Amino acid sequence: MTSYDKTPRTTLRRIPERGVYDRAAVHAILDEALVCHLGFVIDGQPYVIPTFVVREGEVIYVHGAAASRALKTLEAGMAACVTVTLLDGLVLARSAFHHSMNYRSVVVLGTAREVRDRDEKLRILDAFVEKVSAGRSREARGANEKELAATRVLAMDIVEASAKVRTGPPKDDDEDADIPIWAGVIPLRPVAGAAVPDGDMAGRPVPVLRHPFRADR
Amino acid sequence: MTSYDKTPRTTLRRIPERGVYDRAAVHAILDEALVCHLGFVIDGQPYVIPTFVVREGEVIYVHGAAASRALKTLEAGMAACVTVTLLDGLVLARSAFHHSMNYRSVVVLGTAREVRDRDEKLRILDAFVEKVSAGRSREARGANEKELAATRVLAMDIVEASAKVRTGPPKDDDEDADIPIWAGVIPLRPVAGAAVPDGDMAGRPVPVLRHPFRADR
Repeated sequence: MTSYDKTPRTTLRRIPERGVYDRAAVHAILDEALVCHLGFVIDGQPYVIPTFVVREGEVIYVHGAAASRALKTLEAGMAACVTVTLLDGLVLARSAFHHSMNYRSVVVLGTAREVRDRDEKLRILDAFVEKVSAGRSREARGANEKELAATRVLAMDIVEASAKVRTGPPKDDDEDADIPIWAGVIPLRPVAGAAVPDGDMAGRPVPVLRHPFRADR
Repeated sequence: MTSYDKTPRTTLRRIPERGVYDRAAVHAILDEALVCHLGFVIDGQPYVIPTFVVREGEVIYVHGAAASRALKTLEAGMAACVTVTLLDGLVLARSAFHHSMNYRSVVVLGTAREVRDRDEKLRILDAFVEKVSAGRSREARGANEKELAATRVLAMDIVEASAKVRTGPPKDDDEDADIPIWAGVIPLRPVAGAAVPDGDMAGRPVPVLRHPFRADR
């Protein structure tokens, strides 16, 4: 199957034409984002925390301190939501009402499991470093036993998932066409600034960041 | 009081020195972010959705379609979480374990109420447009009665809130100091690209975006 099944929980009701269920499209958004917002519930209270996310096949992974309350809660099988949002532009319309943003977001619903297999855990920890800069996991010192024990990696299968995408110009009402105000889209993207070395890094090349972080000119 | 009270739900337990409860600092992060991630619970399942956020005093506001399930759920007094994250940089360490990110995030816990007062609602709808570009709410066509009725604005008091901030270089272990790999911070920031006009906008200046969106050179 090339698409995720629409479920009552992932079917977009408002502006359904923005809904995307294609696996490749969902994967691309998850892969471009560094940070996801992870939702979980404790005593009826939702919590949303930002955390690094990587994808491998049909699984997304997050990690953190083994002592983290959030990760402990999720590891116990609580329902979770992983949301990723890429803000692509500001949509400036002639009417206040039709102002919008261009974005690509993904919502994944499910439950997490702890990655206890040592090989899988090491591979995913490498994947976090690789997601920032390809090849870096082979150059940096890998995790030692103490660090491995202090780190929890959680996995969530991408089963119930959907993306929502807005692109293109503002959609003003016809009767607003002649309002004399600039209308259009201002694209936004994350840009990397000048690298700040930690001490003397002479002769060591600054790592090349992965897509989409382009170095500033 | 210049700070938010620490509560058991907002006190940072992991790396408590990253916790910030100062009101001005929390406000500055909320004001810099355009998008928040809004968490709510339906039938025990957490949902996290991205949405535009503005702050006025000690209140944050989100808005959307009156028909939105998320906003209807929240308007009914369900517990909510509003999280804002600004990604400031990639922290590249000598060890995989000490890789990190520099960021500023805010978590606000509470319950939302619908803004039913017409003047407050109009003022906040203006504030959303103003947050993108100062002065634009006076130039764009304001909401008509149909649009007002189709839009729901929710307010949440900033009572239980905390920020989390990481800045600065990687914190490698002393014994890793001589690993021959580039270590340091690569700053990230959102940058505005070339504006894409919606039709003929000759003679109309492109709106100046608010902080922190700097136009690309």
